[in-house]
Amino acid sequence: MKGIPPATVNRLPLYLRCLAECDTQTVSSERLADLAKVNSAKVRKDLSFLGSYGTRGVGYDVAHLTYQIERAMGLTKDWAVAIVGIGNLGSALAAYGGFSEKGFAVLGLFDSDPAKIGTSVGGRKVEALSKLEDAVKKRGLSIGVVTTPASAAQEVADRLTAAGITSILNFAPTVLHVPDGVSVRRVDLSTELQICSYYLNSVSAPT
Amino acid sequence: MKGIPPATVNRLPLYLRCLAECDTQTVSSERLADLAKVNSAKVRKDLSFLGSYGTRGVGYDVAHLTYQIERAMGLTKDWAVAIVGIGNLGSALAAYGGFSEKGFAVLGLFDSDPAKIGTSVGGRKVEALSKLEDAVKKRGLSIGVVTTPASAAQEVADRLTAAGITSILNFAPTVLHVPDGVSVRRVDLSTELQICSYYLNSVSAPT
Repeated sequence: MKGIPPATVNRLPLYLRCLAECDTQTVSSERLADLAKVNSAKVRKDLSFLGSYGTRGVGYDVAHLTYQIERAMGLTKDWAVAIVGIGNLGSALAAYGGFSEKGFAVLGLFDSDPAKIGTSVGGRKVEALSKLEDAVKKRGLSIGVVTTPASAAQEVADRLTAAGITSILNFAPTVLHVPDGVSVRRVDLSTELQICSYYLNSVSAPT
Repeated sequence: MKGIPPATVNRLPLYLRCLAECDTQTVSSERLADLAKVNSAKVRKDLSFLGSYGTRGVGYDVAHLTYQIERAMGLTKDWAVAIVGIGNLGSALAAYGGFSEKGFAVLGLFDSDPAKIGTSVGGRKVEALSKLEDAVKKRGLSIGVVTTPASAAQEVADRLTAAGITSILNFAPTVLHVPDGVSVRRVDLSTELQICSYYLNSVSAPT
């Protein structure tokens, strides 16, 4: 499943979500395109990378296409996730039901604040950051989610990568530098608000 | 600024973020493409919708391009934002520094829980949901952010739209139904984890 273009990879979770909203057994590329707000030629092209071409006049089988996307995305495996920085955002993510549904098990919550260590968040105890290395090994943690303040994020990323984590999801508003072979994705919570702004503006603008 | 294709609109915040990371006065489309992980022909095409073509052999002026994108996105205006549902996620967003930087002013925090009403989050008092209509009018709130549990989200969306809000950003894991003329964007916090999964899987898979 190597070699799926990054833009297609970025759209696959969207298709999954749209498929989950379908209450039919099959779905046409036009219907899926409409739900995903992507054009239908792009939907067909994206799905062709999974070897999925649908049936002429019928469309795609919803359950099978869901499975194909999940397999391509590695979602048929379980991934163990560590969250570092248990403030409001880290706590919200720790308790977020949507992760376990998709096969992400949050198996470690870490913070450096002694007042937080030992408290329970989303049913799991917060641990000291010094326990990270051991937890990565023993629990097979493979994705590190960084929800610290920006000022602490690089140090945390260094510890995560030193402990063997090769995939980091960064919510801190800063650019992280990591060794080759480690992938970092940055989530900017203001992105979606900016897109809202565009649509509000294009309605209210006289142009 | 109507008529920018949705896929381009979706990428404009990414370009803004990449431009903010440039410490040079000009940037080539290749460099911007590299930072944004998009191909350079697409970058040029996207920016052409803003009437921005760069200068051959020089590239784009970073400050001017930033301004052009901000103007196209409506980010040169200030937008007043209401957050409804002040749990962990709502609190995290209320305190998120990245919003005000981009011109989003959080001017209303609402919850229906009497234990939360009157408490202070991110420097602002949480108000009863019954104050929403009045606040939309008096403070010019234009974007509603829904961070309630899924079970409460539709009722909140109904109240937001009845109060005159036409743009909703929904973090609750549910599909919202709104009247024509109201736009809803859904944020699924597991999307980015799914993309992490793809890259982890494509490294570890034998295929």
